[in-house]
Amino acid sequence: MKLGIVGGGQLGRMMAQAASPLGVKTILMDPADDACAGDVGQLITAAFDDSTAAGELARSVDAVTFEFENVPPETVEALSEQKPVYPPAEALRVARDRWHEKSLFQSLGIRTPPLALVDDQDSLEAGAERVGFPCVLKTRTLGYDGKGQKVLRSRADLVGTFDELGSVPMILEGFIDFEFEISCIGVRSQTGQSVFYPVVVNEHRQGMLYRSEPMPLSPLQTVAENAVKAVMDALDYVGTMAFEFFVRGDELIANEIAPRVHNSGHWTIEGARCSQFENHVRAVLGLPLGATDLVGPVVMYNIIGQRPPIADILKVPGVHWHDYTKAERPGRKIAHLTISAKTSEQLEIRAKRVEELLVNDLG
Amino acid sequence: MKLGIVGGGQLGRMMAQAASPLGVKTILMDPADDACAGDVGQLITAAFDDSTAAGELARSVDAVTFEFENVPPETVEALSEQKPVYPPAEALRVARDRWHEKSLFQSLGIRTPPLALVDDQDSLEAGAERVGFPCVLKTRTLGYDGKGQKVLRSRADLVGTFDELGSVPMILEGFIDFEFEISCIGVRSQTGQSVFYPVVVNEHRQGMLYRSEPMPLSPLQTVAENAVKAVMDALDYVGTMAFEFFVRGDELIANEIAPRVHNSGHWTIEGARCSQFENHVRAVLGLPLGATDLVGPVVMYNIIGQRPPIADILKVPGVHWHDYTKAERPGRKIAHLTISAKTSEQLEIRAKRVEELLVNDLG
Repeated sequence: MKLGIVGGGQLGRMMAQAASPLGVKTILMDPADDACAGDVGQLITAAFDDSTAAGELARSVDAVTFEFENVPPETVEALSEQKPVYPPAEALRVARDRWHEKSLFQSLGIRTPPLALVDDQDSLEAGAERVGFPCVLKTRTLGYDGKGQKVLRSRADLVGTFDELGSVPMILEGFIDFEFEISCIGVRSQTGQSVFYPVVVNEHRQGMLYRSEPMPLSPLQTVAENAVKAVMDALDYVGTMAFEFFVRGDELIANEIAPRVHNSGHWTIEGARCSQFENHVRAVLGLPLGATDLVGPVVMYNIIGQRPPIADILKVPGVHWHDYTKAERPGRKIAHLTISAKTSEQLEIRAKRVEELLVNDLG
Repeated sequence: MKLGIVGGGQLGRMMAQAASPLGVKTILMDPADDACAGDVGQLITAAFDDSTAAGELARSVDAVTFEFENVPPETVEALSEQKPVYPPAEALRVARDRWHEKSLFQSLGIRTPPLALVDDQDSLEAGAERVGFPCVLKTRTLGYDGKGQKVLRSRADLVGTFDELGSVPMILEGFIDFEFEISCIGVRSQTGQSVFYPVVVNEHRQGMLYRSEPMPLSPLQTVAENAVKAVMDALDYVGTMAFEFFVRGDELIANEIAPRVHNSGHWTIEGARCSQFENHVRAVLGLPLGATDLVGPVVMYNIIGQRPPIADILKVPGVHWHDYTKAERPGRKIAHLTISAKTSEQLEIRAKRVEELLVNDLG
């Protein structure tokens, strides 16, 4: 079987790596002719809005998927005319736009921060009255890793802010004073079967994910799974989806979904019976889903900007190094590593050794 | 980093798959332009004795290794002139020839079956007197999967047998009435560090490996490890090596070594902390070795000749499917699958479900 993937970054790369043992060949489409997934699958160099190239890609594979949600709708349409395309276009449309996304959450009874739609400076000011301070102004589309957003602490912060963020459609969210953030990753098959990985505690630094650790048997698991399942069912979703939540006490407050494999699920390659990547491939190709149980204690660290001394890192037992073969550049995700161990105590010792070696931009 | 691999079959394929997450690109050399590792790395189509192509391969990588032991010595030499080549030529030379191999075992005090060198019909008859019946006549080189050998049960079986096996140099071995066969896989680094996987019980059918299951905490582990270590040290070995033994009571009798990653170690991909493939890549590239401890209960089955219904197989939880993308053909290894589970009991239930679905040539 052959799988088409729009996007040839590390997520496409790891999908292709997961597809390979299944005997599934991958063809990836990316505007960069040195896209890092090009080592692992066949690369078509084309702009993401090149619907001719997209049509060609679709013709040469059995099904198509995406490594990111901001695929131009015309491209999705060109692909869909030829072959099954998952996740469905509606899921991309909803996930691309924070307002649609949060509206869906609310319609499904999933708790969100207080919200207001912002179309101009006036609606920003009116929204801030309703939502209250502090609050977070975010562009409706194209924000990630903390980009395209601003925390507003008082009325003074409102001045000129709509223009500052680009005078584009925005959303204002009440600031959640959370204790920590978790994500729950689910996978839904073409027959509507759903599986879920253990919820993950995520630590961000400077707005970027730094560390993810699954929490087996968490009391939050059921509520998180139910929310992911509700959203996946509502969208008739197929593939892997990540749902991020703020945690306050025993309460989960929806942050956002990613209609794709997700950085907070990279630990599943070694830490779960069947990884988020393999399960995504299985779902998109109409194969049965794999088991999502935790194999043992595990933790993942992102490598940002600069590689640590790799030979020293590999000396630590249980380290699984995943290099995306991307050039070093400040703030760029160039690799991740997962540490596995027999016991939590052993994991903690190994993680301490690794942390001492990390020369992470995120400190 | 870049790794060159002579041979583009499933072993090369799985080495390339293991190299990829490390950020290591692979270039493989194989005479077949549809060699199955070609999906995973870059493929150079050239005969194994094409020393010009071998030289080119070596120039474009950091180090070179092999997926099989029968590499022509001139090719090894052409490679070695350019770049580090592991395992060393001497290890290939010894492993290629059953007489050299068994002589090395004996010189290291490793128990072997009774042996005789056979160069013609006369030395065959004299050897049979010494070794006794039943015994096994094997060509010194190029035998595998039960090919190039014949069991001799009485003097009557000697008649015309030297010519029947091709009048080539042979070795006569006493037939070992063993209870079962095990293998022990070790890896040695460039600094002489050695690590060992748990010994594996191997079940053969019609001379081909059918099933491998690691035996944690086996009383045979130490003796097996010592033998692998002695051979690796004697050869100043670098890389993964498999050593097969016959087991009779608490006694290990050496069968043969393979100076490479080995079919009986495929379970290490999911079942060990760091797989035999990744550890081989690490060793050949001069990186520190990974941990070899068992992650949990695991068993591997070879898929020979014909694929089972894959969608049904994937429904069994804990199944890891490894398809080599080779065409079906009687007696051909085209895939393997590993089953993992939390407990031995769970593994047994899963294995039973899988066995019912296998349409293996080996029955």
